[in-house]
Amino acid sequence: MRFTHENLRQRVVFAPGSSPEATVAEVHSLGADRVMLIASKREAPQADPIAAKLPVVLRHEEVVMHVPTDVATRAIAAAAHSDADAVVTVGGGSTTGLGKAVARATGLPIVAVPTTYAGSEATDVWGLTDGATKTTGTDETVLPRSIVYDAALLTSLPADTAVASGLNALAHCIDSMWGPRVDPIDRVLAAEGIRALAAGLNVVCGGPAGSPPDSLDGIEQTLYGAYLGAVAFASAGSGLHHKICHVLGGMFTLPHAQTHAVVLPHVLALNGPHAPQAAARIAAALDCADAGTGLAALYATVGAPTALRDYGMPEAGIAAAIPAVLAAVPASNPAPITDDVIAALLRAAWEGAPA
Amino acid sequence: MRFTHENLRQRVVFAPGSSPEATVAEVHSLGADRVMLIASKREAPQADPIAAKLPVVLRHEEVVMHVPTDVATRAIAAAAHSDADAVVTVGGGSTTGLGKAVARATGLPIVAVPTTYAGSEATDVWGLTDGATKTTGTDETVLPRSIVYDAALLTSLPADTAVASGLNALAHCIDSMWGPRVDPIDRVLAAEGIRALAAGLNVVCGGPAGSPPDSLDGIEQTLYGAYLGAVAFASAGSGLHHKICHVLGGMFTLPHAQTHAVVLPHVLALNGPHAPQAAARIAAALDCADAGTGLAALYATVGAPTALRDYGMPEAGIAAAIPAVLAAVPASNPAPITDDVIAALLRAAWEGAPA
Repeated sequence: MRFTHENLRQRVVFAPGSSPEATVAEVHSLGADRVMLIASKREAPQADPIAAKLPVVLRHEEVVMHVPTDVATRAIAAAAHSDADAVVTVGGGSTTGLGKAVARATGLPIVAVPTTYAGSEATDVWGLTDGATKTTGTDETVLPRSIVYDAALLTSLPADTAVASGLNALAHCIDSMWGPRVDPIDRVLAAEGIRALAAGLNVVCGGPAGSPPDSLDGIEQTLYGAYLGAVAFASAGSGLHHKICHVLGGMFTLPHAQTHAVVLPHVLALNGPHAPQAAARIAAALDCADAGTGLAALYATVGAPTALRDYGMPEAGIAAAIPAVLAAVPASNPAPITDDVIAALLRAAWEGAPA
Repeated sequence: MRFTHENLRQRVVFAPGSSPEATVAEVHSLGADRVMLIASKREAPQADPIAAKLPVVLRHEEVVMHVPTDVATRAIAAAAHSDADAVVTVGGGSTTGLGKAVARATGLPIVAVPTTYAGSEATDVWGLTDGATKTTGTDETVLPRSIVYDAALLTSLPADTAVASGLNALAHCIDSMWGPRVDPIDRVLAAEGIRALAAGLNVVCGGPAGSPPDSLDGIEQTLYGAYLGAVAFASAGSGLHHKICHVLGGMFTLPHAQTHAVVLPHVLALNGPHAPQAAARIAAALDCADAGTGLAALYATVGAPTALRDYGMPEAGIAAAIPAVLAAVPASNPAPITDDVIAALLRAAWEGAPA
């Protein structure tokens, strides 16, 4: 047992149905009274009731996926001009990401109010995109000081989006199990995340329990699991799964969450037999004797995406992606990796073959 | 699911056999080069190899249980006079506690190197004793910035001390399950702590596995469990168990760890039936169908202390303690509490009756 685990300083508030009050309390605890509120136009229905209770001096709506540099620059300039003393983000990963860009440049503290299962709110990772080049890094300044999770903000998330986003969170948990810096604490949090995500997604998708997709309990479990997955993943670092998805996403402009959902079972099938303790933990968390079987059952229940070709990846992309994937494989990956192994994995993910 | 969980900022390093190097690295990462090293004379064998590698400008040996105010005042003055820029503590809870008193007064960062299973190193709780009055509080400043856990530093801990200290850590885990601020994250960490402590103590005591008491693996598991228990307990807050032990310890000057070890099964027997989910988690972590049975089996294996009368509590103390315990019962305690319930519990703990 030789490891270093870094606990990040953050308050996490689960406040079902009362995000406006909880956000006010968190902003107040920062001693802030001039809020820059970031939420896209699409996120306005969730953001409006929160904004109504806050001392908002600037409402910023220009949110773009992957945080392009020019978008970030405008947000930073607007923050400086407004003399804001805190940032409140209400939205998904792109909104949180823009808040992080502002925090990194200005030092302003963030209170994050997530409306998806992206998990960015629980990490100190920032990202900026300049043209086709995405730069990422870690910086304590960008970690939101508080997160307010309110299940009621996610009731309007379409079921298929919710499922893809939740499976992306599941990928954080599972890939953490063999991440390059994984430690026993990460594994415990990731296992609890898997348990909660499986329970939550079974309900969120309107699954066998027959609950409606807007079940607050299911959403809450999914949020809780997504939070834990992000914490574990930030500590453990990217495993093979995230390296593959990063390569594919960059080369073929695939949708983020769906790509992760499709690739995950194939990486589990590859690594599981070479990481028996991790596989046993995943299996137990899925309440199934075998991890792969458990994941397949969950995927069937929730109607998970299964084939990358459905999202625009060309067949020729399989061969094209292999060298970049091979170059990115973490040295600590449990299964031995060759050209053929990656080729088979990418083909199965592309055509939607069982893992 | 309505809760606030506060993650404290701390690095945790497990460095078996290499605490000197790991401590140097942590001090270095603080940018410090003038170390006040706190370790009692008794702790010198563990502290010397660490001190030898550090830029020590002051070595402070006056460590007293419960951190008396005058002892703290002398340490604070010595720190100021030395112009130290960091504190390194090598020792048990009293040593860590003195370091916290210095940090609270001076703002100096602490690197804690524990030599028992006390857990103080993972909390932001400080305590000071003025005569018979102990004052405690929480302050972010006193949380050690880094912990270095090195199992090799605990090989000389006598088995009975190790068992009592480890069971005190187990009490942090179990009492967290119904602590006044307990949340799902605390419960997961506490359950993992119970699992690790049971596994570790079975070895540390020279138990059925037949391993020698100096097994590094067993110590490491126990340290890991003690760390998790402290984290969970700091977040969840004192439950009934700790309130009882605090009253008894104060009234009869009982030894800390042994008191906790004796009282724990009785509180579990009382609360378990009224907290079935907590009891189920404890049982699972003890790998037993029933929590109480599992704890009893562990106690038998490790030769746990069982009776408060063995540690100097007078029989008349039972009646004397009841009002103070009743006044301290947390409102959230799962089992209903009456005079008779507390009287029966105290009598059983005093005479060493089965829980």
